[in-house]
Amino acid sequence: MGNADIIDQQETPRCFAAVAIPAPQPFFESLKNDLKETFLPDDPLRQFKNQPQPRKLALGLQYVFPILEWAPRYSLNFFKADLIAGITIASLAIPQGISYAKLANLPPISGLYSSFVPPLIYAVMGSSRDLAVGTIAVASLMTASMLGKEVNATENPTLYLHLAFTATFFAGFIVDYLSHATIVGFMGGAATVVSLQQLKGILGLKHFTQSTDLVSVMRSIFSQMQQWRWESAVLGGIFLFYLLVARYCSKKRAKLFWMSAVAPLMSVIIGSLLVYFTHAEKHGIQVIGKLKEGLNPLSAMDLAFRSEYLPTAIKTGIITGVVALAEGIAVGRSFSMFSNYHIDGNKEMIAYGIMNIAGSCTSCYITTGPFSRTAVNFNAGCKSAVSNIVMALAVMLTLLFLTPLFHYTPIVVLSSIIVSAMLGLIEYSAALHLWDIDKFDFLVCMTAYFGVVFCSIEIGLILAVLLSVLRLLLFMTRPRTLVLGNIPDSKIYRSIDQYPNTDNVSGILILKIDAPIYFVNSSYLRERILRWINEEEDKQNSSDKSRLKYVILDMGGIADIDTSGTSMLEEVKSTLDRRGIKLVMANPGGEVLKKLNNAKLMAKVGQEWFFLTVGEAVEACNLMIHNSVSHQSESWINNVIDLV
Amino acid sequence: MGNADIIDQQETPRCFAAVAIPAPQPFFESLKNDLKETFLPDDPLRQFKNQPQPRKLALGLQYVFPILEWAPRYSLNFFKADLIAGITIASLAIPQGISYAKLANLPPISGLYSSFVPPLIYAVMGSSRDLAVGTIAVASLMTASMLGKEVNATENPTLYLHLAFTATFFAGFIVDYLSHATIVGFMGGAATVVSLQQLKGILGLKHFTQSTDLVSVMRSIFSQMQQWRWESAVLGGIFLFYLLVARYCSKKRAKLFWMSAVAPLMSVIIGSLLVYFTHAEKHGIQVIGKLKEGLNPLSAMDLAFRSEYLPTAIKTGIITGVVALAEGIAVGRSFSMFSNYHIDGNKEMIAYGIMNIAGSCTSCYITTGPFSRTAVNFNAGCKSAVSNIVMALAVMLTLLFLTPLFHYTPIVVLSSIIVSAMLGLIEYSAALHLWDIDKFDFLVCMTAYFGVVFCSIEIGLILAVLLSVLRLLLFMTRPRTLVLGNIPDSKIYRSIDQYPNTDNVSGILILKIDAPIYFVNSSYLRERILRWINEEEDKQNSSDKSRLKYVILDMGGIADIDTSGTSMLEEVKSTLDRRGIKLVMANPGGEVLKKLNNAKLMAKVGQEWFFLTVGEAVEACNLMIHNSVSHQSESWINNVIDLV
Repeated sequence: MGNADIIDQQETPRCFAAVAIPAPQPFFESLKNDLKETFLPDDPLRQFKNQPQPRKLALGLQYVFPILEWAPRYSLNFFKADLIAGITIASLAIPQGISYAKLANLPPISGLYSSFVPPLIYAVMGSSRDLAVGTIAVASLMTASMLGKEVNATENPTLYLHLAFTATFFAGFIVDYLSHATIVGFMGGAATVVSLQQLKGILGLKHFTQSTDLVSVMRSIFSQMQQWRWESAVLGGIFLFYLLVARYCSKKRAKLFWMSAVAPLMSVIIGSLLVYFTHAEKHGIQVIGKLKEGLNPLSAMDLAFRSEYLPTAIKTGIITGVVALAEGIAVGRSFSMFSNYHIDGNKEMIAYGIMNIAGSCTSCYITTGPFSRTAVNFNAGCKSAVSNIVMALAVMLTLLFLTPLFHYTPIVVLSSIIVSAMLGLIEYSAALHLWDIDKFDFLVCMTAYFGVVFCSIEIGLILAVLLSVLRLLLFMTRPRTLVLGNIPDSKIYRSIDQYPNTDNVSGILILKIDAPIYFVNSSYLRERILRWINEEEDKQNSSDKSRLKYVILDMGGIADIDTSGTSMLEEVKSTLDRRGIKLVMANPGGEVLKKLNNAKLMAKVGQEWFFLTVGEAVEACNLMIHNSVSHQSESWINNVIDLV
Repeated sequence: MGNADIIDQQETPRCFAAVAIPAPQPFFESLKNDLKETFLPDDPLRQFKNQPQPRKLALGLQYVFPILEWAPRYSLNFFKADLIAGITIASLAIPQGISYAKLANLPPISGLYSSFVPPLIYAVMGSSRDLAVGTIAVASLMTASMLGKEVNATENPTLYLHLAFTATFFAGFIVDYLSHATIVGFMGGAATVVSLQQLKGILGLKHFTQSTDLVSVMRSIFSQMQQWRWESAVLGGIFLFYLLVARYCSKKRAKLFWMSAVAPLMSVIIGSLLVYFTHAEKHGIQVIGKLKEGLNPLSAMDLAFRSEYLPTAIKTGIITGVVALAEGIAVGRSFSMFSNYHIDGNKEMIAYGIMNIAGSCTSCYITTGPFSRTAVNFNAGCKSAVSNIVMALAVMLTLLFLTPLFHYTPIVVLSSIIVSAMLGLIEYSAALHLWDIDKFDFLVCMTAYFGVVFCSIEIGLILAVLLSVLRLLLFMTRPRTLVLGNIPDSKIYRSIDQYPNTDNVSGILILKIDAPIYFVNSSYLRERILRWINEEEDKQNSSDKSRLKYVILDMGGIADIDTSGTSMLEEVKSTLDRRGIKLVMANPGGEVLKKLNNAKLMAKVGQEWFFLTVGEAVEACNLMIHNSVSHQSESWINNVIDLV
């Protein structure tokens, strides 16, 4: 008869606090709570509780139109900053809109239209302070290639816009899966790619690749070396230098903040005057040229819902919608991280949807929060979505009266503005910081960066997200098990790896599992627990006194368990029984305890072998070891029972 | 000046045990350890350590050929059981092999060949005791449909077999993702499907659907009601009754175990004699009929590596290989669960690979561990892989001499044997048990069951696996946060939900996070933590004395953190600072502490605000509250410092 039998016939001293099993909850009530916790963690209706009816209405309106929340607190100082930022991004929006519209095979002016209506809507409904609304290069390129396959570019290109908003539903889930590391890598990569694209303007090239990857861009540039324009490159270099110096000064001395803020606008004015007076447009400096005047014509009647190309339009709408939303939310999040505020994914999705529906009826094409424009907005010191209103008004004035003034704006100046904004956003130090804190996050970051630079923005994002999810699964499949030891002169037990001065308790092995026990790790954990026990037995197989008699599992780190997990614990229990070792559980959580109880495992282990703390479990085991060694079990037990 | 400022200027009493930050490990060493822990958790080379050379060789051989491990312990009693089981499954293997080969559009005899060579190899190399090797219906059907599209069925159908083994590599990862619940549902579903298929034999039908789903099978049966054969149905009913009674008796009285074991063989003999003497084959009872004599011809020379259909063969090989391996390992695992032993996924994959390579050279087609045959083997009381050897030898003898004897075996008897084995494997009680323990596992189980019954075996498995993985992701994205309270008369702090008799500590909120903090949950946790704090402040905003001044985070359940997580904690810290609340950390693990330290968060919170236990953290906070309330901070601090 082994030791286990002796132990099983004894009772443990019940002088310890009992472990509580929570009362079972009705199934549907717990289901309701779980669902609410899962989908509405911030309890958005909480603020409506116990409020009078008019207040409820006001709060509801504030939820849908965040402008109502911040407008009352808006100050003159904020407006000054937003005015400068708004004018700056407006000066960017014009050439950017034109060039992206060209990328999408649309009439150039529709790029300008897209910078008028959507920003106004976003300003009222969006929750980001820094986002500047406009068209993006990737979505423009995709539009051209997807619609171009089947439809002539002149035919109803506004149709698919209307459909883009349906895609916002599907894109929502991406938001949770963008990690800090992904965003750092993605931003660096996007900044690199956008900067490289500006080489077209700076070198004064007429033809350029539509791909964004490094290899294509380099090939495109070096294949037309004879077309490089030194006049353009010199002008670009000078303006870039000016912009960088302005930013450097602003950073060094807080009083000079205005230098950086007005630099882009100054560059545009100086550049335009320079070209106007020197007629440099005839000497290799490209300028924006003639723009049509007048506001957005209505296009609601042009939407071709009965066209045979509707399926193509729907597909294009969904895919570009997902890409645009993903970029917009990634950009919005990145900048909110800098300024330490929080943007609401739900509100953003609503804002993007409405903004694109309205856009599709007013001759705009798909808009979101483009990275470059938002970066300029942020660097120009914007304070709220008012900068979008200023930009929209500036674009409106431009459309109405000022298009001739931009005739002579050199494209190279706009390229310089974009490059200088980008250079500030490749964060070497943030990437190194990731390496210091978490090697895996660094890997994710580098994957996002090189994916974006060498493949494309989508591929970079997708690879980084997949890698991040892989890490989660890896964590779940291979959780850590820790051996605990006693911290001297206390009843505290902690990992012997972390606290090397802890003492082993002879005859007792204390293990802590650091993850929920699910089917993905139950096989692994069985192997690992048995390996710890084997190793422990190898160590101390000399005398009977120090022979391993108890294994205590610290369940404090086990948040949940499924039926594969309870089966695994049952298997471990019966293996230990066969070897004459007793399984003891310490500090199980409510959920886990409920399931162990339902699985009858609590009865099999014996409820008296469940303890509130590891300290109490060790005390009880030590009592039993003394007991069986001194062969006075009965009198001991009686004494202990008397104590209770 | 808020309270936070006062608190920040004070120092905490350092009379508590320090929290240890583990020393940094060299990067490549920790990488090596992580990789080893991930891919070789059971440390298979451990047994080789410190062993003399010959012993190492012996252990190595045992690893590849498990037969060397168990053969020396093999006893005569085991052999008796295996002999009966082997003969029983041999009597099944013959009609099963023939019908499945027909499903695959292969010559009927190749089904018999496949029950001769592969089982011999599996017996030597496999690690399951219960698995009976043979062909499976699903893979047979898929072979026919995939190869049939491009290749004439008579043309080199053995080729793709050779390629199946390459698929085993890719299939390996599936193994970890089959949960207990999935297996219960999958087995029940497969048993239902296989039983339904037997209606063909029992009703004496000649034509039958190739689909396995309930709807197709029912349509197939009721569309040919006029072909139902009552003679066959009556005979089937009688044998099924006999088999079920035999099993019932064996279960009731242990001494009658042999009744169930010999029943299938007896049924085959009685059925064959009955048909032979009554010439029932002329009255609607289908029999196996004439079989070609002679052993497997070699087919190694027939493998058509230079054929133009090689890509088709490779594709078929990979897909059927994955399906076969998944079914085989799922079946092996299920039965090892019953008998409470462990099968080694690596060994199984090696065995399946070698067995199919050898099979492809000896006129066999793809083999694995079919569910029906394994179930019969298990029910017949097999003890080891020797039953496979017996079956192989029996099939060999059959191929050589006995094919005429099986001429008169009625197919309805074989159907009855299969159905009676299946009925024992639909585990209502296990499914109900799942409902008791874990509702989500029950859902997974039902998904697997209905997926298999109403769609197909693959779809059922895939749906169940996807649902299980979704649960993991859901756990990660929405971890629980618990509020802790003090257990009276102790320094122990536990969840107030689980232990309702705990006391709140005035002015202090203690939160426990029950999962690693990763990018998927960092947004959620920020929202949730701030909501707890808001709710706590709403509760106790009356007097300054009970005002919330400290938030203690119990980090004991946080196994890991990434950079999104450290940023989140930083944001929480600065939000709390703004509100005049101090953030305190208790019991952080080694990994987490390292990362918090690298992220400079430890310095920002202040190392003196990290405690080994929640109890110590509360003590320190209480000391500080007393302090600031009694306005004697300086003298108090001095007193405390003197104590250190």
